[in-house]
Amino acid sequence: MATLKDVARLAGVSASTVSRTLSGNIHVDEQTQQKVWAAIKELKYKPNILAKSLKEGRTNTVALIIPNIRNPIFPAVTRGAEDTARKNGFTLILCNTDEDLSVEKDYIDKLTNRWVDGFIFATARDDSSHIMELKSQGIPVVFMIRSIDNHSDTVTVDNRGGAYKAVDYLISRGCTRIAFINGPLDIDLYRQRLDGYKNALKEHGIPIDDRLIVNDVNDQDNGYHAMLNLLDKGIKMDAVFAASDPKAVNAIKAIKSRGLSVPGDISVIGFDDLDIATIVEPSLTTIAQPAYDIGTTAMDTLIRLIDGHQNAKPIVLDTHLVVRQSVR
Amino acid sequence: MATLKDVARLAGVSASTVSRTLSGNIHVDEQTQQKVWAAIKELKYKPNILAKSLKEGRTNTVALIIPNIRNPIFPAVTRGAEDTARKNGFTLILCNTDEDLSVEKDYIDKLTNRWVDGFIFATARDDSSHIMELKSQGIPVVFMIRSIDNHSDTVTVDNRGGAYKAVDYLISRGCTRIAFINGPLDIDLYRQRLDGYKNALKEHGIPIDDRLIVNDVNDQDNGYHAMLNLLDKGIKMDAVFAASDPKAVNAIKAIKSRGLSVPGDISVIGFDDLDIATIVEPSLTTIAQPAYDIGTTAMDTLIRLIDGHQNAKPIVLDTHLVVRQSVR
Repeated sequence: MATLKDVARLAGVSASTVSRTLSGNIHVDEQTQQKVWAAIKELKYKPNILAKSLKEGRTNTVALIIPNIRNPIFPAVTRGAEDTARKNGFTLILCNTDEDLSVEKDYIDKLTNRWVDGFIFATARDDSSHIMELKSQGIPVVFMIRSIDNHSDTVTVDNRGGAYKAVDYLISRGCTRIAFINGPLDIDLYRQRLDGYKNALKEHGIPIDDRLIVNDVNDQDNGYHAMLNLLDKGIKMDAVFAASDPKAVNAIKAIKSRGLSVPGDISVIGFDDLDIATIVEPSLTTIAQPAYDIGTTAMDTLIRLIDGHQNAKPIVLDTHLVVRQSVR
Repeated sequence: MATLKDVARLAGVSASTVSRTLSGNIHVDEQTQQKVWAAIKELKYKPNILAKSLKEGRTNTVALIIPNIRNPIFPAVTRGAEDTARKNGFTLILCNTDEDLSVEKDYIDKLTNRWVDGFIFATARDDSSHIMELKSQGIPVVFMIRSIDNHSDTVTVDNRGGAYKAVDYLISRGCTRIAFINGPLDIDLYRQRLDGYKNALKEHGIPIDDRLIVNDVNDQDNGYHAMLNLLDKGIKMDAVFAASDPKAVNAIKAIKSRGLSVPGDISVIGFDDLDIATIVEPSLTTIAQPAYDIGTTAMDTLIRLIDGHQNAKPIVLDTHLVVRQSVR
């Protein structure tokens, strides 16, 4: 196999010129660069980055495992993760699983074999024991958005506190019959948001009415039919708390389709603060979560783990209320 | 350095059991797997995937270079690319450049040195000679969304035809004073959409009025102030063609902010067919481009290149009109 010295000899330049050309140094003149590249091609020379990785057991590549980049919270999270990876000399492999465990396990197998240095998972569910197995093999793992226990490296937001803020705000605006459109309960963040909803009602002495709570709304329907269903049952309500902005936008659509007005007849509050919150009419009052910062913090944590620091602990980022036009 | 046989010896199992454990085979019982992993950890054994990559000069990893995953066309494009990569045993490295050439060049250097098997670029501009240099080194490169010449592997949509359809439709609805909010002209797709706009007007015998054309609108403003500016100048118009859905949504916002109605006073048509087209009010009539298919087709093309097929030619996907409520 050709070496860097072989390339230098054929190109008629020094070994350090070959190095500098390979590293993209701008101080090598155009003509010299061309000679070097011609020699590299002729000798089929391969720089020894792979060899170095093999020796060090490190590739400076990490994997980000998410449900779906088309779910509108993930572009910002992914940008945060990638920006932090890049600033630290890492590259990011993006994996979408659509919550399909077999896809996720295939990715884990493939990437572990290729010596990805670590993983960030935004896909934890109650049945994610395969991720804990991966951790137990000593591979750096960080959980993001969803957590799995209290002693793993995890970056989430204060879901209980955020949901509490949403319901507390609705109550402060005079709402007392507050519906809750929620996601799947095998994902911990939706259980936490349900807790926050119930806590706020309890503290204000408002009885919890189970007919107003719709759990396990999936990403396909995303709240539209769940909301129609509540309306068509004739259950009295003056507000809806939706566990995500897309669900809130769909709830607004459903309410309007029945000839009711937002916020005149029913107030709506979301959770996320996505771009769509400013596009929908009325613009959406919502609980903002720091999507980009979730990504940067999770990547920072992963890189610290890869570098050998072992301070496993959950990081919980804060949320805040953004008041727009959808609450009376 | 420890070998697979060393691991087998220490774990007290056969070499094939170690292989099967490493490949995630489910037919190795739990207890045996644990013994194997313990031995791997103790010996710091590294499977020879990197060694194999080094020998074959192939990593089954490809890079996707895009401006910004937060630009809402890219999640669907990226999903298409990743799905096709995964189905073919490739993993995808995601790189956001924010159109910053130095970030792009850093990525190219780093990833070429790490022997990424090929690149897809959605970032081509008139000053993208560094990408052509990469190609000239024999590295597989596919252009996507934006093209750079007529003889490279490129996957785009029919931008001229799509823009023509938009303006032709506006004219068929009785519009004759049609403004055009366009992107930067150093990106070829915006030049092509401008051509399509002009062609449609010409064919219908409508004079081109340069005061109605706003080029070089950037992603920050994204059309809002460009539209306000047109309105405040008092230039007569009955329709706006926006070169992207986000620009169309911002144009609608600007028109409404001046007390005018869409489509009553001014019709608006977009280009993309993003989710926001169904969220904005009125819902947006637009030219749909097959974002997901652009990603799958570009990745198919790249994998064929990596496999040694050399039929460099542009692939142009079709667009179609989606009629909603924003045109009279």
